[in-house]
Parts: sequence; structure tokens; C-alpha cells
Amino acid sequence: MSLKAEFLDCQKKKVEEIEAVLRRFLPKEEGYQKMIMEAMAYSLLAGGKRLRPMLMKETYLLFSEGDVKEEMALHAFMAAQEMIHTYSLVHDDLPAMDNDDYRRGRKTTHVVFGEDMGILAGDALLNYAFETAAEAFSYAPSKWKEIAEAYRILGRKAGIYGMIGGQVIDVKETGHAVSKDVLDTIYELKTAALIESSMMIGAVLGGAGKGDVKIAEQIAKNVGLAFQIQDDILDVTGSMKALGKPVHSDEKNEKTTYVTLYGVERAKEIVEEKSRKAVLMLKELPGEHAYLEQLFLQLIYREK
Amino acid sequence: MSLKAEFLDCQKKKVEEIEAVLRRFLPKEEGYQKMIMEAMAYSLLAGGKRLRPMLMKETYLLFSEGDVKEEMALHAFMAAQEMIHTYSLVHDDLPAMDNDDYRRGRKTTHVVFGEDMGILAGDALLNYAFETAAEAFSYAPSKWKEIAEAYRILGRKAGIYGMIGGQVIDVKETGHAVSKDVLDTIYELKTAALIESSMMIGAVLGGAGKGDVKIAEQIAKNVGLAFQIQDDILDVTGSMKALGKPVHSDEKNEKTTYVTLYGVERAKEIVEEKSRKAVLMLKELPGEHAYLEQLFLQLIYREK
Repeated sequence: MSLKAEFLDCQKKKVEEIEAVLRRFLPKEEGYQKMIMEAMAYSLLAGGKRLRPMLMKETYLLFSEGDVKEEMALHAFMAAQEMIHTYSLVHDDLPAMDNDDYRRGRKTTHVVFGEDMGILAGDALLNYAFETAAEAFSYAPSKWKEIAEAYRILGRKAGIYGMIGGQVIDVKETGHAVSKDVLDTIYELKTAALIESSMMIGAVLGGAGKGDVKIAEQIAKNVGLAFQIQDDILDVTGSMKALGKPVHSDEKNEKTTYVTLYGVERAKEIVEEKSRKAVLMLKELPGEHAYLEQLFLQLIYREK
Repeated sequence: MSLKAEFLDCQKKKVEEIEAVLRRFLPKEEGYQKMIMEAMAYSLLAGGKRLRPMLMKETYLLFSEGDVKEEMALHAFMAAQEMIHTYSLVHDDLPAMDNDDYRRGRKTTHVVFGEDMGILAGDALLNYAFETAAEAFSYAPSKWKEIAEAYRILGRKAGIYGMIGGQVIDVKETGHAVSKDVLDTIYELKTAALIESSMMIGAVLGGAGKGDVKIAEQIAKNVGLAFQIQDDILDVTGSMKALGKPVHSDEKNEKTTYVTLYGVERAKEIVEEKSRKAVLMLKELPGEHAYLEQLFLQLIYREK
């Protein structure tokens, strides 16, 4: 098997393991409120790369010496993080936000369950994420300090100083040109923050020291920004067929992007710089990096 | 001063103390995302009885021997609980939910800040509630077990097995008759659950044993149900002037209530029974109950 085929095979197995974790942490579909559990499962189990829980686990593996209880705590956080990512998509798709009827070829949650249930399903996923992560205290009580720290990171990077903050600026600034400073803030908060918390939480639960957690955060920031700028590039150079979504949407929405600010060629160079930086910093962390390195490169040099 | 005047005076002071706690835990209004902090403050500082943080603190006082660090942890949970209550109102008022333009005589959050910001402000308050409560681990690390338990209660009673679950059933069942069993489930989840978690968290942080936490939960359930049934009664017997909102709205929305099931007189008896039960059970708990008892009676026998 070629190196690339081997990586893809390995990735497929890891995604399957994550899917199993997600299914295990979903609530049973029962009670008079059963419909909300169905809506949560519908949106959470819509497929995808499972990037955030994967980064969390892979970063954890760099540090951990292997401990069953610790791993159960990790799984709770992996599920929680994916619930947070999913709720943000469900609310983003609502008519008052991006008003999207389809995501990854499936009808969006509010289209299937109604707009009121779309709002409530998002709320339910966010709330349940924090309930799920709190289970970690029961799984690994001796690690309560690490779990409390992971909890703080989970909340902060998802909230007004992280993802929600980014969405707020993005919503407010849509339809007119923005400065590079504002654009960077949107990308850092809206896209990079959850990638950062994924790697940071993995490191914290694996027992990393403060310095290494900081390095993990910086790596994730570079990966997140490169990922987002690559998105800008693909919106101009990609095809609807490869991306599965309309191209040139940024131009249509008069959005400032790295391409409008710097042009395609310079934007590509910036992606290259940030990715190289991430891979280089990865070498400062302990453990076996081969898989993570490949994953970064796959994310950044993707064509869809 | 009469006993009643004394109680009202005392209550006013306690509400002011709670307002100060809420203000202290609100995020600073800064950064490009400043608008979301403004929307959070607008909705959180809209006044009201501050029932949930008050019940939390008063229940705490029954058990606690007074500890500064413990009290800081309590304050974090009081603010968190009121943020959760507030987010639920903000999302409830959205056009796709109850579509209310006014609440307590002020324009609702989405009317002032836009529908997209209404959704995001609700999300932000819910997320920030869990961030705020997580601060308790830093304030009182030696109490981490109690704090983790309080955290679990906060999440569970607000989520699909608590408040959100109740809202889901309510939304789904609006517009047609429901059984007593369904109605009781809606009232228990939608109204009583946050009252229960308030008293339970107060007890847990005050150091109460499992048995007493269970009693606090039962007291709160009776208070919550009596409160909601009194609401049903006032919708029929009250005046718009006293209530500050339209009456006969249940009839108009073809809602099943305790009044449609049992008539006004029997509904009043049920309120009486549940309130007496709550006051009686309160005597099983340690500490000084006079204020809590008065508060229950005020809530239940209110005319607005």
C-alpha cells in the first residue's frame, strides 16, 4: 500500500471509532420529548471528517501513557466538542442566519424538524455537550484538576471569546469590506478557536504541561487559519462539482477574504507558510507525529 | 413595620444583592464582538424577581456554616442559573417560537438587536453560564466534588431531561388537547426543573447530604407546580392591568391547563395542597426557614 493509501485507511478506521463514541454518548430516544433526541442524532450523525474529536484524541496520544479511566474522560470531551460544533451548524443554517436548506447533501435540521425544533435542537446539543463533558468527573475523579481545566477551555473557546464571538463579528460585518485585522479576528474566533480547544483539551487530558498546551494552541491556530484561507482560495479556484457547494459565493456576498485582500497567489503562499509553521512546531511536542502531520497536510492542501 | 412590609423590605435588599452579583459576572463590553456583550446585558439585566438565584442562595444558607470561598462558588452558580433562565426567555421570544415583541414592558432582545443576534445572544448566555459556573473550581478547589455535582445538576435540569425537554413537548403539543400526564410532564420540566436545580445546587454547595438534597428537590417541585397552576388560574381570573399581559391567552391558544382539566375551584385547591406540602417539607431541613416560607407563599398566592 502507498503511504497515502495507508494514511487514508488509518483515517477511515479512526473516523469509525469516533462515530462509535458519538453514538454512545447520544441520549436514548425516549419520553414525550423524544423528537428532540431524534433531531440531535439527525444533526450529529450527519457524517463528516470528525476533525475536532480526531485532533483532540491524536494530541492526547502524544502525551498520555495510556489509562482506561483517562480515556473515558477523553471520549466524553470528544463527544462534547462535536456536539458544540454541530449545534453551531444547526443554528447557522436557520432562516434568520444563513438560511441553508441543505448541508452535505442532506436537508438541514430545521427543514426536517421545523424551525422551532431547529432552535431547540441547537440549544439541546449545546447544553448536552456540557452535560456530557461533566461526566468526565465521574469517570476519572483523580484527574479532576485536568478535567476542570479542560472544561474551562471547552467553554471559553466556544463562547463569546471564541466561536460565538467570531460568528457575531461575521454576521455584523457581512455585506461590506472589512480590514485585515477584523478578518483575522473572524477567522481566529470562528474557525480556529474550536480547533485550538480540541488540541488543547487533548493535551491537558493527556497530562501535558502548560508550555506544551500553549504550543498545541499555536499549532492549532496556524492549522485553523490555513484551513480557512484555503477555503477562500477554493471558493475562487474550485468547481461546484468537487466542492459540492456553489463557488464564487464570497464574491456574490461581497465578502472580504484573503483572496480579495492579497490575490490567489499570495493567499496560497500564506497557507503554505502557516502550514509549514504548524508542522515545524509539532516537532517540539513529544510522541509520534506522523499521522497528525499527514492530517494537517490533508486539511490544508485539500481540493474540496 | 408589619410582618409583610418587613418581608418585602428584606426581599428588596436580597434582590439588589443578586443584581450586583449578576453585574459582576457579566462580560466586559469590548472587542469587535462587543454587540453580543451588550445583548447579553440587555436581556440579563431586565429586572424581575430573581427567583432562581434567590432560592439557590436561601437554600444554601440553610446548610452552610459560612465560608468566603464557598460563597464565591455559590455566586458563580447563581449568575449561571439566571443566565440559563434568561437565554431560555430570549429564544422563547423569537419569531419562530412565541414571537413576542415585548417582555416586562421592554422590547425583546431580537427586536432590539435583530433576529440573528437574538439567536446568538441566547447561545452566548447559555455557553457563558457554563463558563461562569466553571469558575467555581478556581474559587473553591477544595470543594471540587460538590462543585462537580452542582455542575451536573445545573446541566441536567436545564437540558433535554429538564427545561428544554419541557419546551419541546410544549411546542409539539400546542394547539390540541393533552392528557394530564403530558401536562404534568410539561409543568415539571418546563417550569419546575430550574426551580429544583436552584434549590438542589444551593443545598449541595452548602454541604447538604444526599437525603436533604432530595428533599430540596421535592420542595422545589411542589413550589414549581403550584406556581405554574396559579399561572393557569390567573390567566382566567386575573386582569390585564394586574398581570401586565393579556389574559385568557390559554383559551385563545386552545391550551390544556389545570383550569380546563379541573375548573378554577379545584385548581385552587391543588395549589393549596402543593404549597402546604412544600412548607411542611421545608421543616425537615435544618436552619432558619421563615424567609423561604414567606417567599413560597408570596409566589404561590400572587395576583400577578
